[in-house]
Amino acid sequence: MPVENRPGMAYPTLALITDFGSLDAYAGGMHGVIQGIAPGAVIIDVCHDLPAGGVSQAAFRLWQAFPYFPDETVFVAVVDPGVGTRRRGLAARLGGRWFVGPDNGLLTYARYRHQVEAAVSLENPAFWLPDPSSTFHGRDIFAPVAAHLAGGVPLEEVGPPAGELIDLPPPRLAMGGTVLHGQVLIADRFGNLMTSLGRFLRRPPAWDFQPWIPGLAPIRLAGPPQWVTLTDGRRLPVVETFGDLSPGEPLAYIGSDGLLELAMNNGRASEALGVGPGDQVQLHLQEI
Amino acid sequence: MPVENRPGMAYPTLALITDFGSLDAYAGGMHGVIQGIAPGAVIIDVCHDLPAGGVSQAAFRLWQAFPYFPDETVFVAVVDPGVGTRRRGLAARLGGRWFVGPDNGLLTYARYRHQVEAAVSLENPAFWLPDPSSTFHGRDIFAPVAAHLAGGVPLEEVGPPAGELIDLPPPRLAMGGTVLHGQVLIADRFGNLMTSLGRFLRRPPAWDFQPWIPGLAPIRLAGPPQWVTLTDGRRLPVVETFGDLSPGEPLAYIGSDGLLELAMNNGRASEALGVGPGDQVQLHLQEI
Amino acid sequence: MPVENRPGMAYPTLALITDFGSLDAYAGGMHGVIQGIAPGAVIIDVCHDLPAGGVSQAAFRLWQAFPYFPDETVFVAVVDPGVGTRRRGLAARLGGRWFVGPDNGLLTYARYRHQVEAAVSLENPAFWLPDPSSTFHGRDIFAPVAAHLAGGVPLEEVGPPAGELIDLPPPRLAMGGTVLHGQVLIADRFGNLMTSLGRFLRRPPAWDFQPWIPGLAPIRLAGPPQWVTLTDGRRLPVVETFGDLSPGEPLAYIGSDGLLELAMNNGRASEALGVGPGDQVQLHLQEI
Repeated sequence: MPVENRPGMAYPTLALITDFGSLDAYAGGMHGVIQGIAPGAVIIDVCHDLPAGGVSQAAFRLWQAFPYFPDETVFVAVVDPGVGTRRRGLAARLGGRWFVGPDNGLLTYARYRHQVEAAVSLENPAFWLPDPSSTFHGRDIFAPVAAHLAGGVPLEEVGPPAGELIDLPPPRLAMGGTVLHGQVLIADRFGNLMTSLGRFLRRPPAWDFQPWIPGLAPIRLAGPPQWVTLTDGRRLPVVETFGDLSPGEPLAYIGSDGLLELAMNNGRASEALGVGPGDQVQLHLQEI
Repeated sequence: MPVENRPGMAYPTLALITDFGSLDAYAGGMHGVIQGIAPGAVIIDVCHDLPAGGVSQAAFRLWQAFPYFPDETVFVAVVDPGVGTRRRGLAARLGGRWFVGPDNGLLTYARYRHQVEAAVSLENPAFWLPDPSSTFHGRDIFAPVAAHLAGGVPLEEVGPPAGELIDLPPPRLAMGGTVLHGQVLIADRFGNLMTSLGRFLRRPPAWDFQPWIPGLAPIRLAGPPQWVTLTDGRRLPVVETFGDLSPGEPLAYIGSDGLLELAMNNGRASEALGVGPGDQVQLHLQEI
Repeated sequence: MPVENRPGMAYPTLALITDFGSLDAYAGGMHGVIQGIAPGAVIIDVCHDLPAGGVSQAAFRLWQAFPYFPDETVFVAVVDPGVGTRRRGLAARLGGRWFVGPDNGLLTYARYRHQVEAAVSLENPAFWLPDPSSTFHGRDIFAPVAAHLAGGVPLEEVGPPAGELIDLPPPRLAMGGTVLHGQVLIADRFGNLMTSLGRFLRRPPAWDFQPWIPGLAPIRLAGPPQWVTLTDGRRLPVVETFGDLSPGEPLAYIGSDGLLELAMNNGRASEALGVGPGDQVQLHLQEI
């Protein structure tokens, strides 16, 4: 039974974040199920190549994507090592968008941006595929629930209030004097390393530090952060962009999400620095 | 000349299954051609990372996808090692959906689900791109024919009746006493191994074995299958889901398509068991 | 503020060519931004797995894709090693389609097909995301400008005339007697090697050589090209299609873009021949 668009939405828009990769037909199966319920829906593949079971990386992708997707987008995030166990399925509304996926911490970082307005536990099988498998809830439960929500089904119909959600521990981000202590979060395709150090926003003539993780106060800075130190003592300059240093020199800059990133002009910082996710980094600030 | 939607279709929906990978612009070229003929069509990338020339794996993906895609979906499957030879191009209707691709066995497994209602040989160049290449029929013949079918062109206009279709040999699936003899079909991204053993459906309080390959009779089972033996004698328990055993233990379970899968909780069964596509497996049933 | 479709377009169609890969959410972020501005736009992922910084390969993909995408398609090409430096952003119209991306040579080969009708420098921030980053212009500048163009914003509103565009040096393609001198451009997923030798079109009963790179005159040929020689002296026959030789034999044929390709029936020519991008090849013609 095809659904109509939610009032105010030009098109139902869904956004998929999974660890399903591209070898199989898992993501494709979710697309098929969604189109069957909400024909013509716009489905955006945000990322399917997360590390298998990488819940925190998926939570980070969700945090990254949130501000860049249309209002009313239904995010379906399926990194779900607990599929088939007692873990709950969730649907939630926050920041003008929707979330559907397992209750395993995937919303942790998105909740640093927006308070959850409502969250329900997916207990109404009327919005699932019939006879759902115990191993592919992405296709059998999350995709159909998301398609129905995208089509205008009220949140309260898909299940009862969820109560407390499961949270991941926050990434490291702590101030000590004028030094910010953080960690590497993830490496990207180019070998650039995104860190938890931020969020920095340029507000000419100064800079603002508006922490993306709760617990620290915003700070107005006299200028951009000054330099980064790694655990082995190496010091990297903070520059405006790649082109500001010679090829092969490691550097840091404020990346496109306002977080500090480590990179190498014409090189791969991850290999060259021998640094990866979880490793600690420090950033030296110049307060006003 | 843009086409209208087929009556009863909300949007023309096409689904692509190829071995074109992501390095090149082959799949993208098919998208472009389809949008030129059927603007606004919904095109779902089911899978493009099949092994090069892996006709049986593509046929299996088509079998998997069939029930999860909307009625009237036009599947375009292009794993086509014989492109440019005398092999025919096909368009067919079965199970309320459409198929376009080479006549090399790709429909073999989908035909275990549905009888072909009509099939034609792609001989009418009016529905191809002009001056088609001899090496990329996906872009030059299959994509445009599929877009025209999605838009409502009758099957009989794209070519004459096809007669007999080429079939792949069926995967191994044979009963001996209370033992089902089968084989590994494919490994997925997580190292899980899908086998030909199935299809099992839970019908509380019992289970049904409804073979996905013709030739065996359905059986009502007293419970789920009991255990699997590999050719080296190892025995794996059949559990409900991953979480039922300790990390690192190999196990089997009924996967999301009703076929038996071999997996390892927090591990990769394919490497740990040293088992891969083609290898034989046996399953012990408990009949009522 | 959602945009309407450009008059004459069924749906705004955009086509993305990047080196963003699939590990991250870079391409997904561009999709999100575009859907926010032009809801329901059709966005085709032509290729995201170009080599990092591979401007010439991206320019070649654009050349390949151009004739197969609908009129009014907005190509967004982001292989942008100079992001954050003084390099300009461009929007241009040529051949009935649009281009948005950095001014670093990406249009070089597409311009062999079509003259640029108009090109502007992206200097009007009214069509960018607010507060654009210095490292991800794909999301913050190119995607929103492209979405606005797709929705009907006139080219002259997004910036002032661009004047001269940056060009890549052309690939090697030179005639000497009846021998055409060229080079390998790129290897595909199957290990086939596309060369600069072409473009050849079959015009029964003869063949036409209509060079894809300016500077050579078209030639009418008595038949298809005859053989290829590699720098080590090896000679490959030019055949109609893969199936014309025994498995394991290297061969050449006119590929789906009219360029000569080197391949091996049931094998990978790139490894078997030890030949790759940049290597020289020669083709022997038979003129009428």
